[in-house]
Amino acid sequence: MSHFGKYRRKPVGAAPGTVMYVGEDRSDPIVITHIKYDSQGMTGPTQVGPSEVKPASGESGISWYTIDGVHDTEVLRLIGENFQLHPLVVEDIANTRQRPKIEDFDNYIFIAMKMITFDSQAKELIAEHVSIILGQGFVLAFLEDEGDVFEPIRARIKAGKGKIRKLGADYLAYALMDAVIDNYFEVLEQIGEEIEEVEDEVVHSPSTKTLHTVHRLKRELIFLRRAVWPMRETANSLLRDESDLVSNETRIYLRDLYDHTVHVMDTVETLRDIVAGLLDVYLSSVSNKLNEVMKVLTVMSSVFIPLTFLAGVYGMNFQYMPELHWRYGYPVVMGGMALVAVGLLVAFRRRGWL
Amino acid sequence: MSHFGKYRRKPVGAAPGTVMYVGEDRSDPIVITHIKYDSQGMTGPTQVGPSEVKPASGESGISWYTIDGVHDTEVLRLIGENFQLHPLVVEDIANTRQRPKIEDFDNYIFIAMKMITFDSQAKELIAEHVSIILGQGFVLAFLEDEGDVFEPIRARIKAGKGKIRKLGADYLAYALMDAVIDNYFEVLEQIGEEIEEVEDEVVHSPSTKTLHTVHRLKRELIFLRRAVWPMRETANSLLRDESDLVSNETRIYLRDLYDHTVHVMDTVETLRDIVAGLLDVYLSSVSNKLNEVMKVLTVMSSVFIPLTFLAGVYGMNFQYMPELHWRYGYPVVMGGMALVAVGLLVAFRRRGWL
Amino acid sequence: MSHFGKYRRKPVGAAPGTVMYVGEDRSDPIVITHIKYDSQGMTGPTQVGPSEVKPASGESGISWYTIDGVHDTEVLRLIGENFQLHPLVVEDIANTRQRPKIEDFDNYIFIAMKMITFDSQAKELIAEHVSIILGQGFVLAFLEDEGDVFEPIRARIKAGKGKIRKLGADYLAYALMDAVIDNYFEVLEQIGEEIEEVEDEVVHSPSTKTLHTVHRLKRELIFLRRAVWPMRETANSLLRDESDLVSNETRIYLRDLYDHTVHVMDTVETLRDIVAGLLDVYLSSVSNKLNEVMKVLTVMSSVFIPLTFLAGVYGMNFQYMPELHWRYGYPVVMGGMALVAVGLLVAFRRRGWL
Amino acid sequence: MSHFGKYRRKPVGAAPGTVMYVGEDRSDPIVITHIKYDSQGMTGPTQVGPSEVKPASGESGISWYTIDGVHDTEVLRLIGENFQLHPLVVEDIANTRQRPKIEDFDNYIFIAMKMITFDSQAKELIAEHVSIILGQGFVLAFLEDEGDVFEPIRARIKAGKGKIRKLGADYLAYALMDAVIDNYFEVLEQIGEEIEEVEDEVVHSPSTKTLHTVHRLKRELIFLRRAVWPMRETANSLLRDESDLVSNETRIYLRDLYDHTVHVMDTVETLRDIVAGLLDVYLSSVSNKLNEVMKVLTVMSSVFIPLTFLAGVYGMNFQYMPELHWRYGYPVVMGGMALVAVGLLVAFRRRGWL
Amino acid sequence: MSHFGKYRRKPVGAAPGTVMYVGEDRSDPIVITHIKYDSQGMTGPTQVGPSEVKPASGESGISWYTIDGVHDTEVLRLIGENFQLHPLVVEDIANTRQRPKIEDFDNYIFIAMKMITFDSQAKELIAEHVSIILGQGFVLAFLEDEGDVFEPIRARIKAGKGKIRKLGADYLAYALMDAVIDNYFEVLEQIGEEIEEVEDEVVHSPSTKTLHTVHRLKRELIFLRRAVWPMRETANSLLRDESDLVSNETRIYLRDLYDHTVHVMDTVETLRDIVAGLLDVYLSSVSNKLNEVMKVLTVMSSVFIPLTFLAGVYGMNFQYMPELHWRYGYPVVMGGMALVAVGLLVAFRRRGWL
Repeated sequence: MSHFGKYRRKPVGAAPGTVMYVGEDRSDPIVITHIKYDSQGMTGPTQVGPSEVKPASGESGISWYTIDGVHDTEVLRLIGENFQLHPLVVEDIANTRQRPKIEDFDNYIFIAMKMITFDSQAKELIAEHVSIILGQGFVLAFLEDEGDVFEPIRARIKAGKGKIRKLGADYLAYALMDAVIDNYFEVLEQIGEEIEEVEDEVVHSPSTKTLHTVHRLKRELIFLRRAVWPMRETANSLLRDESDLVSNETRIYLRDLYDHTVHVMDTVETLRDIVAGLLDVYLSSVSNKLNEVMKVLTVMSSVFIPLTFLAGVYGMNFQYMPELHWRYGYPVVMGGMALVAVGLLVAFRRRGWL
Repeated sequence: MSHFGKYRRKPVGAAPGTVMYVGEDRSDPIVITHIKYDSQGMTGPTQVGPSEVKPASGESGISWYTIDGVHDTEVLRLIGENFQLHPLVVEDIANTRQRPKIEDFDNYIFIAMKMITFDSQAKELIAEHVSIILGQGFVLAFLEDEGDVFEPIRARIKAGKGKIRKLGADYLAYALMDAVIDNYFEVLEQIGEEIEEVEDEVVHSPSTKTLHTVHRLKRELIFLRRAVWPMRETANSLLRDESDLVSNETRIYLRDLYDHTVHVMDTVETLRDIVAGLLDVYLSSVSNKLNEVMKVLTVMSSVFIPLTFLAGVYGMNFQYMPELHWRYGYPVVMGGMALVAVGLLVAFRRRGWL
Repeated sequence: MSHFGKYRRKPVGAAPGTVMYVGEDRSDPIVITHIKYDSQGMTGPTQVGPSEVKPASGESGISWYTIDGVHDTEVLRLIGENFQLHPLVVEDIANTRQRPKIEDFDNYIFIAMKMITFDSQAKELIAEHVSIILGQGFVLAFLEDEGDVFEPIRARIKAGKGKIRKLGADYLAYALMDAVIDNYFEVLEQIGEEIEEVEDEVVHSPSTKTLHTVHRLKRELIFLRRAVWPMRETANSLLRDESDLVSNETRIYLRDLYDHTVHVMDTVETLRDIVAGLLDVYLSSVSNKLNEVMKVLTVMSSVFIPLTFLAGVYGMNFQYMPELHWRYGYPVVMGGMALVAVGLLVAFRRRGWL
Repeated sequence: MSHFGKYRRKPVGAAPGTVMYVGEDRSDPIVITHIKYDSQGMTGPTQVGPSEVKPASGESGISWYTIDGVHDTEVLRLIGENFQLHPLVVEDIANTRQRPKIEDFDNYIFIAMKMITFDSQAKELIAEHVSIILGQGFVLAFLEDEGDVFEPIRARIKAGKGKIRKLGADYLAYALMDAVIDNYFEVLEQIGEEIEEVEDEVVHSPSTKTLHTVHRLKRELIFLRRAVWPMRETANSLLRDESDLVSNETRIYLRDLYDHTVHVMDTVETLRDIVAGLLDVYLSSVSNKLNEVMKVLTVMSSVFIPLTFLAGVYGMNFQYMPELHWRYGYPVVMGGMALVAVGLLVAFRRRGWL
Repeated sequence: MSHFGKYRRKPVGAAPGTVMYVGEDRSDPIVITHIKYDSQGMTGPTQVGPSEVKPASGESGISWYTIDGVHDTEVLRLIGENFQLHPLVVEDIANTRQRPKIEDFDNYIFIAMKMITFDSQAKELIAEHVSIILGQGFVLAFLEDEGDVFEPIRARIKAGKGKIRKLGADYLAYALMDAVIDNYFEVLEQIGEEIEEVEDEVVHSPSTKTLHTVHRLKRELIFLRRAVWPMRETANSLLRDESDLVSNETRIYLRDLYDHTVHVMDTVETLRDIVAGLLDVYLSSVSNKLNEVMKVLTVMSSVFIPLTFLAGVYGMNFQYMPELHWRYGYPVVMGGMALVAVGLLVAFRRRGWL
């Protein structure tokens, strides 16, 4: 989450379309899962090799390939060639720092998204780059890490319940996007809970630790906002897109998807407002505490300093100090001191400092 | 009001259209009230079962069903089927966290709103999810909680006064929306009164409690803003919608409704500006108080510390200190101290610290 | 000005079009003034009763009715019926909290505005609700309070100078709106003068009073902004309106009117920026003053505390303290103290604290 | 620069088109300079009387009148009549508080601008109202003050270099506007230099004076922004205007002019951001200084207060205090004091306070 | 980076189209490099004189001239004449303070950009003015400084790999722009790394130095934002431009370019948010430290001041003070002092100050 310094995508001056992986080091082979289904039934999931990922000629039904890993650029290049993807698209699939976007290339639509999860151990947000290619009768889904985020969708296809088997590849692409967006709600829920905890802390026992938590939450929301904002535009573009690849029936679902991104965006902004307010409360609490400390110091000093002075006066060694020889000099002075102290305390109480 | 952590709507990856209730636990049966009226007269209100909630075939007049509760998803599903509502609509009706929106499905319009009330006991805002379906000759109103917010409208239908009996289902839907928006004015009035009270407090007796009230008001306005903002868009969409379901005569009323949402929005923004200003005044007051405290400390310390030093000097036990043996050593030193004290007091007064 | 809590317009759930007065209590009868003029001459002003306020049938010339007071809803209802105004319009005329807006009803245009005046005694802004109905050959002007704001326009009609007698009812409506906007310049001038005064105060003698003045100015500008913003939209709508009621010649004047609202808005924003800056200067001044106080305390304490310690040392009663018996112990110690004091003062001067 | 209080343009309720001068008092006669030129040659500059300022009938070539002063409304009225200017235009020419705007009246275009200069003596910005009328074959330029800002353009016409003699009146109007905008770059340069100076001051020797300079710069930028913003719109309108008065060739130059206003706007915003940052640094510096002061006070007090206490203990006059009679009581106590002092100093150094 | 004061482009009033160099002094001759290529092969790079830079008549293939330096206005004027560039374009090429923009002159497109590099030694951003002219079959690239930023592109042309040899001059222009934008990612990466370092510093050891670094980062981001913002518009304009000079195939690449500028903009905004947050944390840390200091002072003073007073009391020289003569007076008083000290320490611990 904290790697704000890493934005390069390729050596300066390298040719556009240069496919380069910029994420964490991975060297395990890429696993590709293939599912084929139509309203009648479903084949798979089967694991296939990169060279088998190609358009099915002359067959009906929907082909869905999930490519778990984008670190092997050779594999991406091969798939890109098989499906005749534009070199820039292949570059964007490999570039895990690509921001969310959608691009319509007549015969396919390219969608880049960020999946966000919250690592509650390390207390940090983790962003995973997800790319989806929607074509005539096929969907390619590229994931940066392995993971089972699309497992429930496979289960739904298997079960044959709902609309998923009845509608086309566009609905599948929608379902994948919807699953990605759903994760944001989870993350927001967790951040929201953290904010509630911190809110109590700020009010009742603010400490430097609290400040750092507030600062971290602020950064996480900046980060989240940055990921969600283009997602919203992406969902909106897809909704307005006049491509033949998207049917009217699916468009209703895309409207719902757009609505969810707006909801997420909205919540992020609300949480940002609240976190900003927390900082104000924190600073006010610190100021109030300083005031408390200063009042104690002032009361203690102001009461005792004059008394000490008086004691000092009668500690002087002048030969001729008549008071020193009075019979009741000592009790009179002590009484005077008590009077001064009481007078000052009364004055402070009047000012509301006690 | 404080549940910012709860935004999930369904298990991640669950099929779109999965109807799930996410609000507070309720298990009482859902009460459905039916009214039927036309310009001639009115039947009802009668309580009906879920299976009776269906389009009236071949009858004229307007059918209005109020469904008090969205926690029984089975009932919602049944009604949805009867009226052939899109599964996403039924999902949104049950999802009490759905943000306000409007969606036009050729033969009906779906409107989601938030009703806001202010619980003056607990000092918190309560949001209730309200969904309205406007169709040809019928209106369905779904409420999260029981309540009599629509009672005055029933009374107006009964009385047959005003336009309500003369205009169609679109006017009824408008009337329901208008009743929801009216509540915002009440809430704003209450928040406005609270702000005025706090304003006095901030100026005359700021305390930590004041700070927390200001913070709470700020949060409430953030919350309100979040509810109102999409309402405004919703009212505007409905106004611009070219659906056959909305007549030109009703459109004039919708323009008024839109105007009210703008008014609410406007007031929320104004109150936010004022509350932000309160925080500044609070912080300045705290700073001023610190200054007061410090001045007292400084004056007390600065006056007595030199005097104490002088007393200390003549408390030293040196064998050869000629002053100690002077006849008027003591009164001379005391006079000197008085001079020092007066001098310092004069200096402080000149600086305006006394 | 401070009544932010009052936004209700009618009982929740009351029928739209319910005419209700929500302003200050008034029970005096409403005075209606009628003027009739054309390029040839002018009749009136005559006072007429509510039932006489109706469209002139078959007469040429322009009829201008000024209705001084909107608290008698019966009168408004009657006039509304005579001119066939929409019930919502009559509601908005009576609702003194209606925000500025313009609505075009084919055969008349309804304009709601806020007249702002500055009560320099009470130092508060006063908003008066003004409604204008522009129809074919007639203008109705509704004022919340009595007042002579439109007197100069009557004088101009009487004098027959300028364009007013030559152009139609649309020009009259424009002239009324222009008179309302003109008041904003006056108010801004007064607020601007107050800001200049406070600016001097903040720099030379900031006090808690200054802070409250700044806060009040801030609120007044928030209030003003809220009134002006929709006025600008209103002027713009009227300018773009394609109604037959507005001639091209008048449109040039409306462009000028729009220009004035933009000028007002602009000035309000500029003043807001300046007032926000004043608060920063105020806070900085307070901080600087605290620094001054602390420096004095530190210098006094730091100089005398070590000296007092030294005096304390030689005030100890140990039997064996050789220094006490030295011939020049006393002057040597006093010299040492002087050295310490001078050293500290030099160090403080070097730090720039003296 | 500081006259934020003066915005009135005419008595409230005065007829629109009332020509009134609102600038500084001037009573000297208005000087009008006339130049006539075409691609062949140039006549003038000659000084002409107000009545000679009129459209040249049946002559070719371009007539350029510069009117140095707008305080004699009689002169303006006369010129207005000669050229058949709309009364509102004449009002706007005389109204030196008119904000920049452009208005297209079929047969002429009216452009109002603000010329800004920086009085480096008084350290304030001076705004001069400039109005330009572009008609078929003539340009009228009205200046609030005398000045030679257009002198270089006259020189260019005389020299016959560049495009100015080849292109029409529209190019001349452009050249005048360009000269006005050029002044903004000068002003920005001067403000930019001042900011750099203050930046050093804030970092190395912040004082109350610095704060006031920052505040002044802030106000100047607010003022500048207010003048430039509508200029940008004006340039853009002129560029998009489809008037026959502007040729395509000149449009390329107007695009450049627009570009310059954007550049100015941009720079103003950047400088505003920087000045806002300066205030933060200033406040932080003041806080840091307070910290420094407090640390010195704390170290001095904390070290000597316990020592003074110890000295006080052995200054007590109890009859039975064995330590007082020990042979090495004095040096032991002094050693103990030294230990305490060193211990405290070490503790403070560890906290980084020394 | 810090030269905010330098914005003038030419003497006020100078004719538009006056070519003037305003950058750093350079007097070395301008080096012009020429490359010619088509899908078959490539000639050059050869160094040519200014007079040889002219449209190739009747030849196919793409001509690319790189002009390293814009300080010799004579050379620019000559090239401008050869290619019939508009005088304003030549002015903008020489004016190194020109902000990024794009202008379409039917037969060529003019693009002005800023290349940004980060001088990690001096810790400042350096902006270089880059101008590109795209015409039919040729590209002119003007650079403010020498440098090899376009070297990789020459290498790609030589190697004949990728699309560059197959596509036209528009693709070459795109490639140049892409290389410029690539540099921003580098700069952002470096700033991002600096921010991470400072973030640690702010949390663990904030100092005045930290504040200045934060302030510098803030300024750099303001500077960067100012350079990038118009670049985004430029890329977008080029993308939407309907010029014949840009082919559809290249447009896909321009979409990618636009996407990169958005990404840069986005990152700049995110970093700005983070830096703003750093300042808050810094100020809070400083406040916390002050609190720490004050607590120590308060605890030390409050504990010892009463004790010192007690010691002072028994240091008084009254003749009749019975306690002084008690056998156990001394240990009793010492015990009492210990009790007071312990009581105060317990009280402070309860308040959480120890």
